[in-house]
Amino acid sequence: MRKVTTRLATSAQVLYDFTAEPGNNELSVREGETITITNQNVGGGWIEAKNSRGEVGLVPEDYIEAQPFTSGGNAASLDLSLFDSHIPAPPSTAQTSNGNDPWAVFDSNASGGFSNNWAAQPEGTETGETSSSAWHSGGHGHPQAYQGPGAEDDEWDEEWDDVKSSGGYAESEAGEGGAIHRGGAHGSSMKIALNKFPGFSKSGPELYLLSKQPAKGTRLPVYGGEAGPVWAYPDYQLDCVVADPKKGTKMYGLKSYIEYQVTPTTTNKPVNHRYKHFDWLYERLLDKYGSAIPIPCLPDKQVTGRFEEEFIKMRMERLQGWMSRMCRHPVVSSSEVFQLFLSYKDEKDWKMGKRKAEKDETVGVMIFSTIEPEGLPDLDLIEVEQKCEQFNRFTRAMDDGVKDLLTVGNEHWKRCTGPLPKEYQRIGKAFQNLSSVFNSSGYEGEATLTDALTAAGKTYEDIAQMVAEQPKKDLHFLMETNNEYKGLLGCFPDTIGVHKAAIEKVKEADKLVATGKITTSEKITMSKRASTMSYALQAEMIHFHTNRIYDYNRVMQQYLEQQVKFYEMIAEKLRHAHSQFTTM
Amino acid sequence: MRKVTTRLATSAQVLYDFTAEPGNNELSVREGETITITNQNVGGGWIEAKNSRGEVGLVPEDYIEAQPFTSGGNAASLDLSLFDSHIPAPPSTAQTSNGNDPWAVFDSNASGGFSNNWAAQPEGTETGETSSSAWHSGGHGHPQAYQGPGAEDDEWDEEWDDVKSSGGYAESEAGEGGAIHRGGAHGSSMKIALNKFPGFSKSGPELYLLSKQPAKGTRLPVYGGEAGPVWAYPDYQLDCVVADPKKGTKMYGLKSYIEYQVTPTTTNKPVNHRYKHFDWLYERLLDKYGSAIPIPCLPDKQVTGRFEEEFIKMRMERLQGWMSRMCRHPVVSSSEVFQLFLSYKDEKDWKMGKRKAEKDETVGVMIFSTIEPEGLPDLDLIEVEQKCEQFNRFTRAMDDGVKDLLTVGNEHWKRCTGPLPKEYQRIGKAFQNLSSVFNSSGYEGEATLTDALTAAGKTYEDIAQMVAEQPKKDLHFLMETNNEYKGLLGCFPDTIGVHKAAIEKVKEADKLVATGKITTSEKITMSKRASTMSYALQAEMIHFHTNRIYDYNRVMQQYLEQQVKFYEMIAEKLRHAHSQFTTM
Repeated sequence: MRKVTTRLATSAQVLYDFTAEPGNNELSVREGETITITNQNVGGGWIEAKNSRGEVGLVPEDYIEAQPFTSGGNAASLDLSLFDSHIPAPPSTAQTSNGNDPWAVFDSNASGGFSNNWAAQPEGTETGETSSSAWHSGGHGHPQAYQGPGAEDDEWDEEWDDVKSSGGYAESEAGEGGAIHRGGAHGSSMKIALNKFPGFSKSGPELYLLSKQPAKGTRLPVYGGEAGPVWAYPDYQLDCVVADPKKGTKMYGLKSYIEYQVTPTTTNKPVNHRYKHFDWLYERLLDKYGSAIPIPCLPDKQVTGRFEEEFIKMRMERLQGWMSRMCRHPVVSSSEVFQLFLSYKDEKDWKMGKRKAEKDETVGVMIFSTIEPEGLPDLDLIEVEQKCEQFNRFTRAMDDGVKDLLTVGNEHWKRCTGPLPKEYQRIGKAFQNLSSVFNSSGYEGEATLTDALTAAGKTYEDIAQMVAEQPKKDLHFLMETNNEYKGLLGCFPDTIGVHKAAIEKVKEADKLVATGKITTSEKITMSKRASTMSYALQAEMIHFHTNRIYDYNRVMQQYLEQQVKFYEMIAEKLRHAHSQFTTM
Repeated sequence: MRKVTTRLATSAQVLYDFTAEPGNNELSVREGETITITNQNVGGGWIEAKNSRGEVGLVPEDYIEAQPFTSGGNAASLDLSLFDSHIPAPPSTAQTSNGNDPWAVFDSNASGGFSNNWAAQPEGTETGETSSSAWHSGGHGHPQAYQGPGAEDDEWDEEWDDVKSSGGYAESEAGEGGAIHRGGAHGSSMKIALNKFPGFSKSGPELYLLSKQPAKGTRLPVYGGEAGPVWAYPDYQLDCVVADPKKGTKMYGLKSYIEYQVTPTTTNKPVNHRYKHFDWLYERLLDKYGSAIPIPCLPDKQVTGRFEEEFIKMRMERLQGWMSRMCRHPVVSSSEVFQLFLSYKDEKDWKMGKRKAEKDETVGVMIFSTIEPEGLPDLDLIEVEQKCEQFNRFTRAMDDGVKDLLTVGNEHWKRCTGPLPKEYQRIGKAFQNLSSVFNSSGYEGEATLTDALTAAGKTYEDIAQMVAEQPKKDLHFLMETNNEYKGLLGCFPDTIGVHKAAIEKVKEADKLVATGKITTSEKITMSKRASTMSYALQAEMIHFHTNRIYDYNRVMQQYLEQQVKFYEMIAEKLRHAHSQFTTM
């Protein structure tokens, strides 16, 4: 149980072993150890702490359990009880409990579902080799602001960033008071900065439904396509290459970071970005489009082994996947902030663009005000609701299916890299062993048999190695694709929740008119806007479906192709081994 | 720990669950149950017992632990302590301890090794699906007579057998007194009926070394071959087919048995034999040739499920393997008793031949008196000893290698029929599940993907089945061959032990001459006969080597051929599954 009392805490209990990265100002801690928190405002998922030997260093925030100042009294426990479900999974077995199903709120949903939906975050499951802790903050009606006062990443490069530009954070500090930072190493939790929507907690989607101000920003048309409403797709499909990770240091070498080269296919001119820049982009996209478009999380922040080659390679691969997915989205890829990220000209250009993006007011539900269904009839509420429920059912079912495949795939991975190759190796050894015994027989003329038997043994040793290496060649991509979809699907409860809440509001419209709270004209506007929202959702679903069909087609083809090659290669090796025995 | 106090026992503890075969006069018992022995002279590995509910029936002797009459006093424990190592392995995990290594006696052997060697019996390991208990009676200097007073198999068909013909058994009753029957469900223990060699325990191989009587029976020439001394091989390679098992009953249907049809390739005229007849043949061959030729055990007697189709099939296959091996042996296949078994004309012929075989006096070490090295020079003792030690080293090393392969193979079998196909099935189900989710998307035009995904899922289910069934097609034969060799190799400590003992005797010859116990002429005869024995052993080793090379060549080819087919078929299935996805 994690008691979230960072403000009061001075000492903390270590939940999991953590080994410091040498030269990185980190502190190794052991499970069960008690440490003193010396600075909780370090940010980036880290706290500074001192151990019993007086050593001071950085420790991942999620690896410790802050202890309340009052020594465990009932009052303190009661205050914290609402957060009891926020249990970080241990780094090694990051599968969190399914107890708080983010999809469940839509089943029993009546009218109060909206504020819950914001808090509902899908569980994060880590299936690759990198360790991370996953978050699962269930629907307890306590929306968690992603960005809090302590959230400013200490890795944020001062030379690149303008301190004043983080006005958004200052604002949120004022608004949220003691908001607790819950970033750090996170799973695929969707993070929507609620504080960016003024008065959101009071009004929800009615901010848009009843908005009187004219829409600001680029218009987002929705057309009637063959399969239904579609976004406007660009003629040229944007993509980019994330490559060439380079290590840099700062703070006199105390902290180091990795910079990736991002090259868009449009300009073919590379720009450099650190993980935190990707994270900044993610935040902007989430703020701006999160209500209408599921913005999948970035790959997990990594706590240990940040400079291991394999981790960097894996992160790069996942950042590539994330960027490619964003590039493929017609709305996201054509957005100013995304274009800035991919093709800023120089530091000044970047800084200016950054400041502008952070001041963007067309965020949250207001994005719907820019959506323009072109030549599409207004939809009645029943149709809107049916569509919404259909998408919810589907994404939920797919979420289950994807998770099931991930579980099975993960077990298969373990078997293929563990017991199975060991067994083939033992078979190979047993053949070779028998061959060397035969060699000692003293009987002339059995060299053909012993040579063949040795070769057969070596073949099975080769097969052992092939088996162990195969998952990287096929299962890996199947897992990565499904992991990506798990992340994407995890955003749908939030996105669909916005629509659900809007539908509920429109349903209340008659009552609001009767009680004089809105006019009949406003009621009509609300209904029309719910229709616009539905077109946006439908366009997004069609985008999702076409991408899904493309992705699964591609990954299954790749998987099966590699599997065929694998079994053919084994057969070929065995055929060769077979040919060395003589027919008698 | 098994306390062997059958004579005193009235009650017994049940060691393993045993389920009675319906209509077979058997009694189901549960592990831990206490039963009362009502008749311990039933024979054939069975005792008659009564349970607490008063039900009476047959129970396998090895499944119970007889309790001493005296209630666990020290005196009783002491009396029984010599038998403490005779622990039957539980039916399900019949791998016995390796503590008493039958090969070890030759390493530390000086002169007293001989009587130990007879008692040294290789462990019995059951690797197939049939359950049995394995015996391991180590070298404790207490030779176990295979046939004791209670050993007359109750299944012995009176109509076929002449009671008076079992004179050999009556003789042994007198000689061994309270000898304990240890037959029943046994592993590959070699059973040499010591009581068949008059005065054996006193004289050992000197019975032959100093024999003055002329050799009786067919001469067995040994020639100088290219690779060394060889038996005289027939022009025509005898073989036979064991087939068409038929069930018969006796004792008014209380007991039933299986009769197999044995058809030799020479006469092509089938004869019928029950398992007990094979066992009778085995006993005759062991008595007659066991000192010179390793006579492998018959496949295990089966305790449970004797009439299950699969067991009968397995026993038939193993009897076929045993018969074919005997047919391939030039000495065994041309013997009178083997020819009788394969091609007796009628019941009278069989009975006559049976009686004659049981009266054969050229048994035990006396078989060496029939061996005639043709045109081969006498070997000196050093050469004889070197050869003997070389064969011992080799057979011992091969025994280890074969057991290692069996262990690995057994684990592989378990994986291939257990967790592995389950995993492929789950992968298949996960694909199909995802496909049916996709089908529910409401998005038009993804039938190609969902059909292909379903087909891929079904392919993995097919693969699961292929994986589970494959061991029967390849690993089975590899295991059977190695099992056969394990049995064969288990006979070598006994066979080589006879030679070792003879060598020791010849080494003592000078002393015997000095003390006037033998004449110089007798000493020369002893040395010459040791040379003859060595030629027999060498001929036998060459026979073993040629057969081994043939068998392993054949079984490895078959294994690899089937493995190639298996992997090719998987690749082909996956290639087909792959082709159903569209290239986009």
